[in-house]
Amino acid sequence: MRRERVRDLLARVADGSLGVDGALDTLSAEPTESLGFATIDHHRALRQGFPEVIYGAGKTPEQIVAIASRIAERGDGVFATRLSGDGAGALTSAFPAIECNAVARTAYLAPDTPPEVAKGSLLVVTAGTSDLPVAEEAAVTARAMGCEVARLTDVGVAGIHRLLARRPMLDTARVIIVVAGMDGALSSVVGGLARVPVIAVPTSVGYGAAFGGIAPLLTMLNSCAAGVTVVNIDNGFGAAVAAARIMHA
Amino acid sequence: MRRERVRDLLARVADGSLGVDGALDTLSAEPTESLGFATIDHHRALRQGFPEVIYGAGKTPEQIVAIASRIAERGDGVFATRLSGDGAGALTSAFPAIECNAVARTAYLAPDTPPEVAKGSLLVVTAGTSDLPVAEEAAVTARAMGCEVARLTDVGVAGIHRLLARRPMLDTARVIIVVAGMDGALSSVVGGLARVPVIAVPTSVGYGAAFGGIAPLLTMLNSCAAGVTVVNIDNGFGAAVAAARIMHA
Amino acid sequence: MRRERVRDLLARVADGSLGVDGALDTLSAEPTESLGFATIDHHRALRQGFPEVIYGAGKTPEQIVAIASRIAERGDGVFATRLSGDGAGALTSAFPAIECNAVARTAYLAPDTPPEVAKGSLLVVTAGTSDLPVAEEAAVTARAMGCEVARLTDVGVAGIHRLLARRPMLDTARVIIVVAGMDGALSSVVGGLARVPVIAVPTSVGYGAAFGGIAPLLTMLNSCAAGVTVVNIDNGFGAAVAAARIMHA
Amino acid sequence: MRRERVRDLLARVADGSLGVDGALDTLSAEPTESLGFATIDHHRALRQGFPEVIYGAGKTPEQIVAIASRIAERGDGVFATRLSGDGAGALTSAFPAIECNAVARTAYLAPDTPPEVAKGSLLVVTAGTSDLPVAEEAAVTARAMGCEVARLTDVGVAGIHRLLARRPMLDTARVIIVVAGMDGALSSVVGGLARVPVIAVPTSVGYGAAFGGIAPLLTMLNSCAAGVTVVNIDNGFGAAVAAARIMHA
Amino acid sequence: MRRERVRDLLARVADGSLGVDGALDTLSAEPTESLGFATIDHHRALRQGFPEVIYGAGKTPEQIVAIASRIAERGDGVFATRLSGDGAGALTSAFPAIECNAVARTAYLAPDTPPEVAKGSLLVVTAGTSDLPVAEEAAVTARAMGCEVARLTDVGVAGIHRLLARRPMLDTARVIIVVAGMDGALSSVVGGLARVPVIAVPTSVGYGAAFGGIAPLLTMLNSCAAGVTVVNIDNGFGAAVAAARIMHA
Amino acid sequence: MRRERVRDLLARVADGSLGVDGALDTLSAEPTESLGFATIDHHRALRQGFPEVIYGAGKTPEQIVAIASRIAERGDGVFATRLSGDGAGALTSAFPAIECNAVARTAYLAPDTPPEVAKGSLLVVTAGTSDLPVAEEAAVTARAMGCEVARLTDVGVAGIHRLLARRPMLDTARVIIVVAGMDGALSSVVGGLARVPVIAVPTSVGYGAAFGGIAPLLTMLNSCAAGVTVVNIDNGFGAAVAAARIMHA
Amino acid sequence: MRRERVRDLLARVADGSLGVDGALDTLSAEPTESLGFATIDHHRALRQGFPEVIYGAGKTPEQIVAIASRIAERGDGVFATRLSGDGAGALTSAFPAIECNAVARTAYLAPDTPPEVAKGSLLVVTAGTSDLPVAEEAAVTARAMGCEVARLTDVGVAGIHRLLARRPMLDTARVIIVVAGMDGALSSVVGGLARVPVIAVPTSVGYGAAFGGIAPLLTMLNSCAAGVTVVNIDNGFGAAVAAARIMHA
Amino acid sequence: MRRERVRDLLARVADGSLGVDGALDTLSAEPTESLGFATIDHHRALRQGFPEVIYGAGKTPEQIVAIASRIAERGDGVFATRLSGDGAGALTSAFPAIECNAVARTAYLAPDTPPEVAKGSLLVVTAGTSDLPVAEEAAVTARAMGCEVARLTDVGVAGIHRLLARRPMLDTARVIIVVAGMDGALSSVVGGLARVPVIAVPTSVGYGAAFGGIAPLLTMLNSCAAGVTVVNIDNGFGAAVAAARIMHA
Repeated sequence: MRRERVRDLLARVADGSLGVDGALDTLSAEPTESLGFATIDHHRALRQGFPEVIYGAGKTPEQIVAIASRIAERGDGVFATRLSGDGAGALTSAFPAIECNAVARTAYLAPDTPPEVAKGSLLVVTAGTSDLPVAEEAAVTARAMGCEVARLTDVGVAGIHRLLARRPMLDTARVIIVVAGMDGALSSVVGGLARVPVIAVPTSVGYGAAFGGIAPLLTMLNSCAAGVTVVNIDNGFGAAVAAARIMHA
Repeated sequence: MRRERVRDLLARVADGSLGVDGALDTLSAEPTESLGFATIDHHRALRQGFPEVIYGAGKTPEQIVAIASRIAERGDGVFATRLSGDGAGALTSAFPAIECNAVARTAYLAPDTPPEVAKGSLLVVTAGTSDLPVAEEAAVTARAMGCEVARLTDVGVAGIHRLLARRPMLDTARVIIVVAGMDGALSSVVGGLARVPVIAVPTSVGYGAAFGGIAPLLTMLNSCAAGVTVVNIDNGFGAAVAAARIMHA
Repeated sequence: MRRERVRDLLARVADGSLGVDGALDTLSAEPTESLGFATIDHHRALRQGFPEVIYGAGKTPEQIVAIASRIAERGDGVFATRLSGDGAGALTSAFPAIECNAVARTAYLAPDTPPEVAKGSLLVVTAGTSDLPVAEEAAVTARAMGCEVARLTDVGVAGIHRLLARRPMLDTARVIIVVAGMDGALSSVVGGLARVPVIAVPTSVGYGAAFGGIAPLLTMLNSCAAGVTVVNIDNGFGAAVAAARIMHA
Repeated sequence: MRRERVRDLLARVADGSLGVDGALDTLSAEPTESLGFATIDHHRALRQGFPEVIYGAGKTPEQIVAIASRIAERGDGVFATRLSGDGAGALTSAFPAIECNAVARTAYLAPDTPPEVAKGSLLVVTAGTSDLPVAEEAAVTARAMGCEVARLTDVGVAGIHRLLARRPMLDTARVIIVVAGMDGALSSVVGGLARVPVIAVPTSVGYGAAFGGIAPLLTMLNSCAAGVTVVNIDNGFGAAVAAARIMHA
Repeated sequence: MRRERVRDLLARVADGSLGVDGALDTLSAEPTESLGFATIDHHRALRQGFPEVIYGAGKTPEQIVAIASRIAERGDGVFATRLSGDGAGALTSAFPAIECNAVARTAYLAPDTPPEVAKGSLLVVTAGTSDLPVAEEAAVTARAMGCEVARLTDVGVAGIHRLLARRPMLDTARVIIVVAGMDGALSSVVGGLARVPVIAVPTSVGYGAAFGGIAPLLTMLNSCAAGVTVVNIDNGFGAAVAAARIMHA
Repeated sequence: MRRERVRDLLARVADGSLGVDGALDTLSAEPTESLGFATIDHHRALRQGFPEVIYGAGKTPEQIVAIASRIAERGDGVFATRLSGDGAGALTSAFPAIECNAVARTAYLAPDTPPEVAKGSLLVVTAGTSDLPVAEEAAVTARAMGCEVARLTDVGVAGIHRLLARRPMLDTARVIIVVAGMDGALSSVVGGLARVPVIAVPTSVGYGAAFGGIAPLLTMLNSCAAGVTVVNIDNGFGAAVAAARIMHA
Repeated sequence: MRRERVRDLLARVADGSLGVDGALDTLSAEPTESLGFATIDHHRALRQGFPEVIYGAGKTPEQIVAIASRIAERGDGVFATRLSGDGAGALTSAFPAIECNAVARTAYLAPDTPPEVAKGSLLVVTAGTSDLPVAEEAAVTARAMGCEVARLTDVGVAGIHRLLARRPMLDTARVIIVVAGMDGALSSVVGGLARVPVIAVPTSVGYGAAFGGIAPLLTMLNSCAAGVTVVNIDNGFGAAVAAARIMHA
Repeated sequence: MRRERVRDLLARVADGSLGVDGALDTLSAEPTESLGFATIDHHRALRQGFPEVIYGAGKTPEQIVAIASRIAERGDGVFATRLSGDGAGALTSAFPAIECNAVARTAYLAPDTPPEVAKGSLLVVTAGTSDLPVAEEAAVTARAMGCEVARLTDVGVAGIHRLLARRPMLDTARVIIVVAGMDGALSSVVGGLARVPVIAVPTSVGYGAAFGGIAPLLTMLNSCAAGVTVVNIDNGFGAAVAAARIMHA
């Protein structure tokens, strides 16, 4: 159960609109639920502020829908990533209200109680057009977690004036996510210009010695701008969760 | 110049205790200064909240002292990392008040105006005793940047009850830094238990297929707990700066 | 020939139900048999307790059926792994009684004499739903070798309470196989909680810096819990054979 | 506390030779103990059958002696690995009865109650003379855990008759540890000849494309003999613990 | 022009059956010929004993046929490797007499003058059935270069008796090619048993930590049997040419 | 805008054929233009002598056409690389005059003002036929940037006389690009023979231990001929731009 | 012999100041000279514009002096790199006029005829102070080859204004060498700002995931600024030779 | 025992100069001998034509002398490689007649019966002076095995005329060993020029992206000259044994 729903429940008990027994029933649902092929962690929402997210890769459409159904039954929102077309289709059939994003390869069904609104705004910066799917995954994830999102697209360092021209955006963000493939150099420049937390996401964009994202990953880990942190290659989702951890603190 | 000093200066102009010309002189110092072998970025403190830090590796003691002198002359604090014994010795001779930390291999000279105090407390968690030098580098850095620091040492996952027994510490921290070598698994467990930002530092502790820290680096990048971010191997300094960016926001 | 069949043969000679000459004929079959493209090791069953297993990858359906036929002719059970759909289909046509498992990609035809029953129970633990095919390969293999199998699914360390809640299962198993991709951290936690032999199987589940299973492989090789052993990436079969070696000793 | 000591304690309570209060005092000692730089897991012995082992690399002699003292105070045996000469010297000064093994780089102080005797015998096979330090680490560790150890040395596959001539040793062992560097091929041959569990330890012996042990590590992970399991490069200790887990089951 | 053809030509001049002018015309053909997309090295046959071989990968069927035509026009035999189905089809249409081998993915058109017969016999040994395509490429190449070829198939070290039973074959060969994937251990055992030159070919057979042939490549480079040489992964062709260099010396 | 167009514009203002206001309008177009998914750097042509090039990989046909349209509207030439068939088709539909090169996978639409002609001639040397697509990308790119191009094809070092026979071409070129896969050795030989700048392009041609171009990349980086510089694997485009930088200086 | 000396010789023959026989003697010196452990390429100077350079690593001081003596005897200048202290000492003893540079680890003895002066100026840009030895090697090499050298030091992208403030230097150079370790990002920014050839030199400065220079090497190979070329890690010498090839064209 | 000694023994029995019993005693010595830390394979000489060679790395001087003594006692020659100064010293003390080679790091004590003389001559070609220790190891090894050795030193491809000038040496050798570090390109050029077997030895000479010999190793494995075989990095010994296998066939 989402933290917000528990707070709401307790408030309704406090004001008498919900009886103790009814609240007890809702709360006493098992924290984990076994589906044979999956063990759902229903208390993750309470513990971490967002429900268990469904990682779509390697799961069949049937498994995805089954997990989503159990989460949705509790009124927690459903969020799925790395969806194939089949996976997205199956979710749409099962949950007509679910929002699928083809670029980000995500699906989102809002919870009964809207997520707590985070402080400040997240800025997602991308080096090139080919980095957009990863950036979109980050943006969609952050919104599902209650964060406001702004974007700055295709401002790679080969034309540094594109970034410098938009520098005020770096100063007003509360957290910045930098998404870049190839040389990954954008994260060092942004990290040097900004005061706020900078989370770098290497992408598998590139060829040859980009080695599927190893090149920008190493660039970002070795950033000469101190205090830049890094997530896995193409992991827009993880970067957004890290940003949400900061913005909800 | 540190942000705090500029604010202080402007306050003194406002209350008449400092004349406009004197303030102008102080402010008009060149933002960068060239020493031939180095170009000091004096405005970094103003831009990012802490002055340029001296990375000791690959610099001679003479170069280190020369850079430190220029920074110290402006009243900005001096902070140096990765110091050899010679480097630390040279700094101590030049600045008797400087504090050298042999485990962390750092030196710190407080600025004229103390750094702004960060919100909340940083928790530095280590998997094993051999990870302590990296953890110490993180702790010393964070303190120099105005952050309060708590520690939880030698709580690797081979004896998971050691961590579970101290779980309240995970709940009260504002940011958690996890320092681990070998399997690096501690970051995933902490990332799953805590709500707050978790920054993982892989260390070069281990042998064989630890490959000088590659093993825990990969573990941390692939953490199954969402939202864990990672810095370079043995980069306690960078983790602390990232934490300070969050805690000063 | 399986050890059990030889023992049975000798018993029948001892009690007079089989003549010496008939027994001799059966035993004098060549220990290896050449098919041109393969040299079958018929004595492996006698030497190691299970017959030569057919590794389906890189073999044509015709080759697979030809090898299986020679093994089946001797009454030894047939076991094949890494089967493509075509390979499984060809085996089903040739041996209607064969059991194909689509998730594990295996086929199994029971031997004339059932395999010796192993001591104790094997527990197969998986970190996530996407690890199931590898876990299933392990479970099916172990059963074919006479081992009883229990399962614990989707108990990755991001929600550590899912594992802790089922701790008694770790205490009653005779051998534990841990199947995990991504960070592979589950093996260290299980290795620290359990007294019994723990065999870790890294899987190719994950993306980016998981590098097709290198990340969990390194995690497992560097496990801070002493005494965890490791097999090849996605090698559920090998883990099960190792477990059977232990459980038949 | 070692399992054996707890059993002994309970037996003495049962026969009246120890009062309930005295037993309680002994048992109520904290399961973990913090030394600032280390958190000792005193219950590991009870949980896993052997006390926490001190990994000497990366620890100062002072830290090693401090940890050893706390473990020894409880009557649990002390076992330390990867000791430098200084570390071994400091332990010898502190514990005159401790046995240091210069080849294995270990130190061992027997517990008050001898360890439970394991079933069967462990065979440690080495490919070459240069692999002996790792094999010795395995042998010393296994003995400290109550296992009987036999050895077969310098029987690499370049002269396969050396191994074949000693084949009966492979048949009578309960567990076999194969220690090999360079091509690591010995583990596949032994794995094919033996029925019992085979644990392979790659060593960093070799040069050039041996890459510090990567070559034999990969050989062993890809062993064409099914059911061979692998530990980290040079990890004789871990192989022995895995063997002890099997032999104490 | 093949060496044999030049020798034949000279002999015919010597015995008067060919006039000097006719011989001159044949010999004076340009040693290299440019097709725009290729520069054919017609003198390679004279220099090295076999004509330029067409590496089919990365060439269009049209390019392959064009190169083959120029070589064939001179009476030198055509030999092509790594042919796609389309490439083989185009060659068959252009040269009805050409022999295509689907397993080896080669095509061969005999030269006007048969190749010189090499001394002794080549033995091609394979570890498993899946290694056959590479072994077949080696065998077909060696035959095209005048070498007699024997085979020993599926004698991997997991069942070492399969190899030991055929040991006389190792003693009578003049050169041995060992083809093996996965652990690649067979080359060390053969290298230790045989006196003659042993050329090892790693194959991409295997999965996971076989890394597309890196594992057996490293095994073979680190062979504990001295004097084993190695060629590229899956390079049956190169191994056969190396054998032919030896057998024609 | 291309440098040439700006110069032309100014000349027309100088001779009165263009009014000041018209020139101003043309010049005052925004230097960068945002399309949401891309930020076009219109000043790159002015700054670097050629307009922003469209990297086709990872962009949809719609995105490619949209970017091309904005560049074309300004009269700057359009140049696109790494085009899929769909991308090339979409460009051809949108710009009937565009020249698509199927081997190089490029498309080129000439600018209103032809590019400045570079000094001297570029020589593109290839080791084998399979390297032609990369060589062609280099040649087409260089021509679009005003460079004259000569070619020397299939002169790999296995037949060194093919190169030596054409040595005068090495002496008359102003810059040489060497394109080679597999062993990449051609760059060292050319680098030793030529006085002029040599730019080496490793290709992904090869198999096995060529590792998708890593082998020739390392060869080229370690060239024993001093002064050879290297670009990314398969990066014919980058090599040509580097050559154009030299030839336009 | 250096090209300049040959030209000078011919001029003296032309004006009668040198007889034909004397010129012949000088010219007829063997182009290569064997010292047993080395084969000196005396014609390299004539062919490539500078004499054979002595790579000091892996040579004994005696070997270095012996080679230098033969080159010096012909009046060609001596240039040695990667000198140990012993190597530099031996050269100084043998050639008192030689100039040793301790930072660059080079030694230089001017030739009888000064080298041809190159066109334009070379700019050597470094990211940090620790990159200076590599930059110095480049600068000293370029000067020995007749190039004028300017420097821009410690302008890494973490403080991008340090570089932007010196932008005119980028516009007036004829060639730019960028020397950077850690993230190597400086080369992309310089490549995007400058029109002229940019040669990137990765350095082994850094730790952890910098992997001894692999991180900046990959960054530079994947530079998003087109036309940046790269040399080996720490290869300041090679970058300077490449620059000299350009500047002498 | 060496093959030659056995043949000699039998001849003496045949001509009556040695009694049957004496011959029997000599022959009946155990084929393997255990020293505790080593198992000597005395029959290797008989099986493979040369006695077991002592690999000095990782063995103590005492172990080396002990093994050498047992081999020497039988009249077989002693050959040791990779000797430290201490190892060589100990051997010299024990066997005053032993020949130590400091460059090759070998020691050789001739057998009672000189080795059979091989057919033809071995040519050892080196790319640079720094490759000499590896080349020397090859030359010394080959001589100990009865092969005549010629040398061609410092003929790397950066000055290709040095090699071309000595081409007749390539034509008269029976086997060629090419020793090269850095780009390793020499093996491809020699492989293309020569008809005879070419064995390539990569060396660890170089820096940066030479990666301790990986660069030339990959070059050699990918040689565009067909039929070049490769041994481990710096393995001059192995190359010589491979050559001896060919030359004794």
